Amino acid sequence: MVSREGLDALLSPRSFALIGASDKSTFSLLLHGNLDAAGHRERTYLVNSRSPEVHGRATYPSCVAIGQPVDLAFVMVPAARAADAIRDAAAAGARAVMVLSSGYAETGPEGRARQDELVALAESLEVAMMGPNVLGLVNVTAGIPAMTLSDPPTEPGGVALISQSGASCGAMKDFASMAGVDLSHVITVGNEAMVTVAHLLDHLVDDDSVRAVAIFMEAIREPELFAHAARRAARLGKAIVVLKAGRSELAARAAASHTGALVGDDRVIDAVFADLGVIRVDTIEDMLVTAGVAATTGRIERPGMGVVSISGGACDIIADLAEAAAAEIPELSAATTAAVAKKMPAFGHAHNPLDVTGAAIVDVDLWEHAIEAVGNDESVGCVVVVNSLPWREDGRPFYGQKYVDAIGRGMKASAAPALYVTQVMQPIGRETREVLRAGNVPHVVPGMRAAVEAIQRVVLWSANVARAGREPEPVEPLEVRRGRYSEVDARALLEQAGVPVVPAAHVHSAAEAAEAAARFDGPVAMKIVSADIAHKSDIGGVRLGVAVDAAAVVYDEVVAACAAAEPGAALDGVLVSPMRPPATEMLVGVTRSEEWGLVLAVALGGVLVEVLDDAALAPLPVDEARVRELLTGLRGAAVLQGVRGRPAADLDRLCQVVVAVGRLAERLGDDLDSLEVNPLRVHGSEVEALDGLVVWCKERAIDAHGLLTST
Amino acid sequence: MVSREGLDALLSPRSFALIGASDKSTFSLLLHGNLDAAGHRERTYLVNSRSPEVHGRATYPSCVAIGQPVDLAFVMVPAARAADAIRDAAAAGARAVMVLSSGYAETGPEGRARQDELVALAESLEVAMMGPNVLGLVNVTAGIPAMTLSDPPTEPGGVALISQSGASCGAMKDFASMAGVDLSHVITVGNEAMVTVAHLLDHLVDDDSVRAVAIFMEAIREPELFAHAARRAARLGKAIVVLKAGRSELAARAAASHTGALVGDDRVIDAVFADLGVIRVDTIEDMLVTAGVAATTGRIERPGMGVVSISGGACDIIADLAEAAAAEIPELSAATTAAVAKKMPAFGHAHNPLDVTGAAIVDVDLWEHAIEAVGNDESVGCVVVVNSLPWREDGRPFYGQKYVDAIGRGMKASAAPALYVTQVMQPIGRETREVLRAGNVPHVVPGMRAAVEAIQRVVLWSANVARAGREPEPVEPLEVRRGRYSEVDARALLEQAGVPVVPAAHVHSAAEAAEAAARFDGPVAMKIVSADIAHKSDIGGVRLGVAVDAAAVVYDEVVAACAAAEPGAALDGVLVSPMRPPATEMLVGVTRSEEWGLVLAVALGGVLVEVLDDAALAPLPVDEARVRELLTGLRGAAVLQGVRGRPAADLDRLCQVVVAVGRLAERLGDDLDSLEVNPLRVHGSEVEALDGLVVWCKERAIDAHGLLTST
Repeated sequence: MVSREGLDALLSPRSFALIGASDKSTFSLLLHGNLDAAGHRERTYLVNSRSPEVHGRATYPSCVAIGQPVDLAFVMVPAARAADAIRDAAAAGARAVMVLSSGYAETGPEGRARQDELVALAESLEVAMMGPNVLGLVNVTAGIPAMTLSDPPTEPGGVALISQSGASCGAMKDFASMAGVDLSHVITVGNEAMVTVAHLLDHLVDDDSVRAVAIFMEAIREPELFAHAARRAARLGKAIVVLKAGRSELAARAAASHTGALVGDDRVIDAVFADLGVIRVDTIEDMLVTAGVAATTGRIERPGMGVVSISGGACDIIADLAEAAAAEIPELSAATTAAVAKKMPAFGHAHNPLDVTGAAIVDVDLWEHAIEAVGNDESVGCVVVVNSLPWREDGRPFYGQKYVDAIGRGMKASAAPALYVTQVMQPIGRETREVLRAGNVPHVVPGMRAAVEAIQRVVLWSANVARAGREPEPVEPLEVRRGRYSEVDARALLEQAGVPVVPAAHVHSAAEAAEAAARFDGPVAMKIVSADIAHKSDIGGVRLGVAVDAAAVVYDEVVAACAAAEPGAALDGVLVSPMRPPATEMLVGVTRSEEWGLVLAVALGGVLVEVLDDAALAPLPVDEARVRELLTGLRGAAVLQGVRGRPAADLDRLCQVVVAVGRLAERLGDDLDSLEVNPLRVHGSEVEALDGLVVWCKERAIDAHGLLTST
Repeated sequence: MVSREGLDALLSPRSFALIGASDKSTFSLLLHGNLDAAGHRERTYLVNSRSPEVHGRATYPSCVAIGQPVDLAFVMVPAARAADAIRDAAAAGARAVMVLSSGYAETGPEGRARQDELVALAESLEVAMMGPNVLGLVNVTAGIPAMTLSDPPTEPGGVALISQSGASCGAMKDFASMAGVDLSHVITVGNEAMVTVAHLLDHLVDDDSVRAVAIFMEAIREPELFAHAARRAARLGKAIVVLKAGRSELAARAAASHTGALVGDDRVIDAVFADLGVIRVDTIEDMLVTAGVAATTGRIERPGMGVVSISGGACDIIADLAEAAAAEIPELSAATTAAVAKKMPAFGHAHNPLDVTGAAIVDVDLWEHAIEAVGNDESVGCVVVVNSLPWREDGRPFYGQKYVDAIGRGMKASAAPALYVTQVMQPIGRETREVLRAGNVPHVVPGMRAAVEAIQRVVLWSANVARAGREPEPVEPLEVRRGRYSEVDARALLEQAGVPVVPAAHVHSAAEAAEAAARFDGPVAMKIVSADIAHKSDIGGVRLGVAVDAAAVVYDEVVAACAAAEPGAALDGVLVSPMRPPATEMLVGVTRSEEWGLVLAVALGGVLVEVLDDAALAPLPVDEARVRELLTGLRGAAVLQGVRGRPAADLDRLCQVVVAVGRLAERLGDDLDSLEVNPLRVHGSEVEALDGLVVWCKERAIDAHGLLTST
């Protein structure tokens, strides 16, 4: 639908037509001014059939009239004339158009209809349409500011910025500049009627000038393509950092299962992003600072941060920030400590964070030696150097240039990547960049908190990126009956799939119940069997701790209670199982997300999930290593190590079983809505499903009698 | 020890002596340069007995030789001559000295001894000594830059900044400037040998030019005075914002009780600060931005934020930030919505956050009307206006001045305080301040996250400040025997204090045990009674669910097990209590903190505390309202509302009982180390201690036989 040529014409056009250029339009003035200032005047053509002169230049009545090839056309005419403008551009050879005009899908159904027409037209003409309601884009690397934006960036760097918000894009690229994060591209996507974030991402990951991508988005319009592009980026070692707004508006879904209730749409986004190796952030500052760090360091090989600082107070603040961010500040090896101590004055201590003290003001080389030693420590993956920098642009030479030079030398000698970090967030202006360049300092991060958090995000991404780059393998489908499943049906599926289930007798009379209880020789659990009853325990359909000699009576009670409470339900006897001693209980379930497919949720039962919502999610497929990560990441994970007299859980066995549940769900395919084991009882190596639930998608559901079910 | 006159001389000196002034000293050059540039040259005297000319001026051989009164002397001589310098200054009438020299307590015991001598000398001369190892202070309001600091601030404002770190102070005052937070004072305290943060705080809260205080500290040297000053500040409506480093180095204390293990020193700081109404932050940026907001808004009367923004993307980001910060963004009232809608164009929505849309670019008044309407909404306590500002200082007039003017008009018409907030953190330079001044915008916060979080801190402070301002009332001491307490002794104390305890029979034979069990007519709990055994359940000293007919046998088993495991322990029979059905269990305990006195901890038992460390702390005294806040703030608080078939807890009853425990602890006085009820069983209105523990401070502990115990 969107071709490579179209994207090339959008991102690297050599000739431009401004359709509807006008002296009264700020958009037109800005756009033309930018292209002119960047040296593209000759190949920038102004098209206006009503005004012969605009922006002090002669206009053309149409694109075709230009008589030169046009790569990219900007449509700035009212909606009624947009279609003609696109035809005109296509006729002049344009493979891409940007529709700056608003008044489309963002205004409502009528606008959406107009928008759909434009898309159909563009597709038929094989023109890639960006927008509508878009501001344009800047290819900073190639010096092409095809955007209605004041002060487009001109200093190229490794971070591509894509934004779904036009109005915030200016603040974003300004902050990037302030923060010393140089951009390869600044791209707005407007309504994403045709060209989406996913298309651009997929295209940009192959661009050598792009080392990381920062994206502000509120909705992901092409989930499959986005996921595909994200995995490619992971394989290429390029980080994607997303500020995705809209957590707060999303409530948990009403669902047929507990799992569905845990799996709110925003939590799925978190899980999907973790799976794809996409870094998620919550502020514009974090988005750009993190992308800037990733573009500089690439993968960080080890999680430890080595901190070298001029200020003891800053060392302490950083230690606290690291702890809050769960970032590691490892102890330095004996060799490193010795190397550092050789140069440190009597009152310094060779710890990490390392305070070079006031002595470094006098002996500049202390910086170099300290950074080199710390950066070559076997536990250090990234060196953080905390020192000041000028923040005013006042033409005065920086008294601290010699320190920056010494720091630069140390960084060069360091095996681990190193970042210069100021104590507070402050602007990195032209003069300061010159100070850094003169000292050969490759990158600065303004502010200790921003730095520690950004580095930790890149550390986690680095640990994750190999797995994220792997395409999921297809599974062999399992053909089974659809329709309403009772617990008996669900148990059978689970058992076949290798998930241990508690023994059970499916009985159809009080006498059979008594017999079964006797065989189990101890108190039993008795549960009504019915594909039509969702909440059995609410209506007396579940009885626990039933003594052997009470089983017969309880059978009749259970059946009677359910028949009374749910007269229309088809009852199919009762399941009788031995009561198990108390143990840790988990919820393991899979549910379907519209955009992303099947998602696994694991949670520790009881108060941990009911009160604390302590669950871990991951899209399928998962392997045992992934499941282990999920389990150990639960807030209540210590329960699995054994508390209050219970043995530690056999994690290997538990992970095997969870993987089996996930795999079964995958094999059940597109018709599956949810599959749940709740609870999964865990006691040392005993891992056993005490209940099972299978729900098929409604629109395709066929009941036990082969009839289509309604909601 | 530190007099008001001394502090006045430190903070508002009119004449200055620089003892040890030297052209070779950067400190001396900076200090003199600052005082000179600020117009104090005439009353700044350079004292150097070895050099007749320094900084291009004639020197004096001593302070006395000046022949004019000296208010404040700076000691910049080596340690050996510091004492003489102080004597000289005192003889010339100085009531305060600043010792800039280092090489004192920060270097070790020898340095500390030298420091103590200086303190003794200063006290004997009635001179307030700041430092040593200090950089000085700037009284910005009075234009007195008595500090070795480059670029001291000159624009006065309402925030006093106090820092225990000299090396980070420059970054802090620079960030304050960048962030538009004007300072009344910048004060470093060095080693705090004599004048401490607490002294300065206590002095500054009475200064009308000080509206909020920002403090960077690592240790609190005068807890009682600090607490007293904090409560005064609360009563005066002046916020104190503390960046206290060192969370990560503090482990939980080894303790005689579970409570002590929960009450790590840093958690106590959090609890004490909450009690005193002190706002705690984790970064320099948050410290200054929050103080700046508090200085502008004072108490914020209602928790709701009204947000007005030019960007839909920013609205969404702010909504997410607010949710993450637990800040309220209330729906606008019908009246407000109507007022707003009247002016909004067809495609705007009158929600909160309110997107004024691109129409506000054309119709400037939209800003004014929207802010006025939102600011007069009954639910809105603070208005947040998100719009851009220039960040470069390049002499170009700001195209957006008319928007700032309209925003300023709207803010003036708003009942609630209003803050201009930029989308990202950016520097507020001179030109930008002029833009704001021209538009009558009183305060700007750079960055949405910084703003939302700072406002929410001030909102919480505002809700807390009345309680924080109240001085605790003394309690009537309770005279009781000290020494080792068994559970029987502890139960008696608790019961007298109004804490319900589970019924128990204290038996001394198997026969008595059987009798007691029969009386209780059901399974019983049996626990050894001994003041000498700490962990009874580990050695078979606790048996639960003992059947009536087994009580006698179990009595003998329990006694035998304890005698075998702890041969030296004095055993005093067994407590027999009825088993209670399962219910919610809590830990309620009080433990002593060295600096802050008795601290109450409440926690929900079971996995919630063992695995999640979910506890709430507060220094005593607490009232029922405070206890209710603590309980509802627990992560597991929903348990108290009833889960899994259990009734909701009677919170009133529960709070009463917790208050009774706290009050008892207070009345037991300074010898108490800890008092604990674990568990406190809660089932609806049934609130009952199932166990009790009292531990007295070791150094004063006398055992049950009246003998001093050892550790």
